[in-house]
Amino acid sequence: MSLQREEANYFGAGPAFLPTDVLRQAAYDLFNFENANLGIGEISHRSKTAMKVIDDTKANFKELLNIPDTHEVFFMQGGGTGAFSSVAYNLMANYAKRTGKKGKAAYAVTGGWSKKAAEEAQRLGFDVDIVANGKANNFTSIPPYSEWKAIDADNTAYLYVCDNETVHGNEFNSIPGPEYLPEGVELVADTSSNILSKKVDVSKYGLIVAGAQKNVGLAGLTIYIIKKSLLEQASDDELRALNIPLSPIALSFPVVVANNSAYNTIPIFTCHILRLVTQKLIEDGGIEKKQEQNEYKAKILYEALEKYPSLYKLPVEKNSRSHMNVVFTLPSEDLESAFLAGAAERDLTGLKGHRSVGGMRASIYNAVAIESVEKLVAFVIEFAEKNQ
Amino acid sequence: MSLQREEANYFGAGPAFLPTDVLRQAAYDLFNFENANLGIGEISHRSKTAMKVIDDTKANFKELLNIPDTHEVFFMQGGGTGAFSSVAYNLMANYAKRTGKKGKAAYAVTGGWSKKAAEEAQRLGFDVDIVANGKANNFTSIPPYSEWKAIDADNTAYLYVCDNETVHGNEFNSIPGPEYLPEGVELVADTSSNILSKKVDVSKYGLIVAGAQKNVGLAGLTIYIIKKSLLEQASDDELRALNIPLSPIALSFPVVVANNSAYNTIPIFTCHILRLVTQKLIEDGGIEKKQEQNEYKAKILYEALEKYPSLYKLPVEKNSRSHMNVVFTLPSEDLESAFLAGAAERDLTGLKGHRSVGGMRASIYNAVAIESVEKLVAFVIEFAEKNQ
Repeated sequence: MSLQREEANYFGAGPAFLPTDVLRQAAYDLFNFENANLGIGEISHRSKTAMKVIDDTKANFKELLNIPDTHEVFFMQGGGTGAFSSVAYNLMANYAKRTGKKGKAAYAVTGGWSKKAAEEAQRLGFDVDIVANGKANNFTSIPPYSEWKAIDADNTAYLYVCDNETVHGNEFNSIPGPEYLPEGVELVADTSSNILSKKVDVSKYGLIVAGAQKNVGLAGLTIYIIKKSLLEQASDDELRALNIPLSPIALSFPVVVANNSAYNTIPIFTCHILRLVTQKLIEDGGIEKKQEQNEYKAKILYEALEKYPSLYKLPVEKNSRSHMNVVFTLPSEDLESAFLAGAAERDLTGLKGHRSVGGMRASIYNAVAIESVEKLVAFVIEFAEKNQ
Repeated sequence: MSLQREEANYFGAGPAFLPTDVLRQAAYDLFNFENANLGIGEISHRSKTAMKVIDDTKANFKELLNIPDTHEVFFMQGGGTGAFSSVAYNLMANYAKRTGKKGKAAYAVTGGWSKKAAEEAQRLGFDVDIVANGKANNFTSIPPYSEWKAIDADNTAYLYVCDNETVHGNEFNSIPGPEYLPEGVELVADTSSNILSKKVDVSKYGLIVAGAQKNVGLAGLTIYIIKKSLLEQASDDELRALNIPLSPIALSFPVVVANNSAYNTIPIFTCHILRLVTQKLIEDGGIEKKQEQNEYKAKILYEALEKYPSLYKLPVEKNSRSHMNVVFTLPSEDLESAFLAGAAERDLTGLKGHRSVGGMRASIYNAVAIESVEKLVAFVIEFAEKNQ
């Protein structure tokens, strides 16, 4: 028996499709890594072999995203939900160190995930300012910075944005500049569903965070890219004196960084997949090349959908549309069912929208081939010609 | 290319050896699950397929450990370190619900892991009573309950023990009965390194917790077996009023249970490995059979080491010795190096002790074959005959 599969045309939102050659290598390495008669998941997380997996993965991220020396990469167990809490605990502990006081946080709520992030910071006991809120228009656009509430520059530790909202299908097309973001307020971005899909200027961010399971690997690891100065934190005693909640130790950024992401037992097999995915990305031409492909995929899909406005509705306004999660609806549930059934007949799967939004969602992450998107485009047109 | 490896004789302490046939199946399923042309790690964690993985794994644990209806099984991301925090947050929130007040916790410190657990509870702001402490004798024995400090029955939420200390190589041979443990104080046991190695009476525990990466699978998931009544917790407002720290939402037991372990994105591939391991355990005769084998493995290894008291020192007292982690030292570093080198020549690997303790450690978890332990025993004797 050998490892075999046909190339799927899979548009699931996550955990998502991985490159087939990466997954084949991962399967071999799970079973027998470098002919040691042991799998990569069976060895000590503090062994040289494991440390090399971590170091290589970090180096790949640094290369791909051109991460400056001012920033560090690390990995923690968990996903977005754990990250929400970790961001608040750690950025506030840094703010307390910087200023000697308890800060507040600014959140832009542009979809379901940033909403959850803001709610979690608030629940944990932090003072949260919602500076932008797209809920009134069902998150169908990201409000321009000129309409955002001004940030309380004297008391705010960070501004949190979700760069790409997986469920609602919107994406930022720029980051807030100095005309909006006061100096000293750190920019934090959740890039769980678009990390490594496009170039970013890491130097502009205090923190970039991303769950691995959409563009980079399996569920279970979260990638953090942090400005090193943010690792300076008030002591536990200082935090208690300021009535600032302490992070559970597994979520403490300085502790994790000091232990090269292996303070607790890092899931090394999951990290190894990140290594393989990022290695392939480098070999395939890096982020610029990938960005070109992603822009092309999004362009042909949105254009096909736009051609039939009576059949396909695109809820998200044009300049806020996600390049990763293409959300669209049809006029009736019957038509939506027929669309899904016809797609499935053509081996186009994973297209059902999120339960909270309905309709369709085509997630066209890095690993989704141009050919798959072209097949989907052909079906979008074929279905429209028959049903419009 | 197909999946090949020779059977290793690997005694690493964790992440640990997994059954070869399980790992082979996992590698196939990682790549292509049930001929869907998608791997088990590439699908939605809320899909029927993923839910079946979770449900089957839960059912296997219930069957293997004969878990009564009063208890529930769930999984969370992370490992022991995250579990330390989660235990304190959640058990205290339950105590507040039960009593309307902030409780304290009793910890038995019998090795490095229970020490860390107690420190974390204290750091988070909980009142901790150390009721037993083996540090004075370097954790070479577990003090008898008759010598433990009495528990403050009117104010204590739970008693925490680490059933098997992986680093120091000791293990409880009984659980505290009513003559020591007051009614209403819940027994919490960390069984990360001996879960599924022996029968346990689950009804006696409020909570059993275990990282997966030693006896059950890859790093990245923690197994919780909880008395359902402990899922009742004071509200966030009530906790704030009592000055009890809130759990980050990803560690909140009621939230995780209400979402069948998929509130956040459960690493479903990792869970699938747990399913395969537990399924195999059932097919191979269940816990009783496994316990017999484990007792035999420990018996022949300890007996061989005891035969040469001038060469092999067993620091842990006889009735506190672990059946999983056999710790021993040799009289000099030269002899220890020679032992490790000789072992490696015979493909006996993973035997170096933990950096904090030194010496040797043979971890003989469920997946370590009797044949591997017999080979180690033969080498222990051979080496002693040459060097004593």
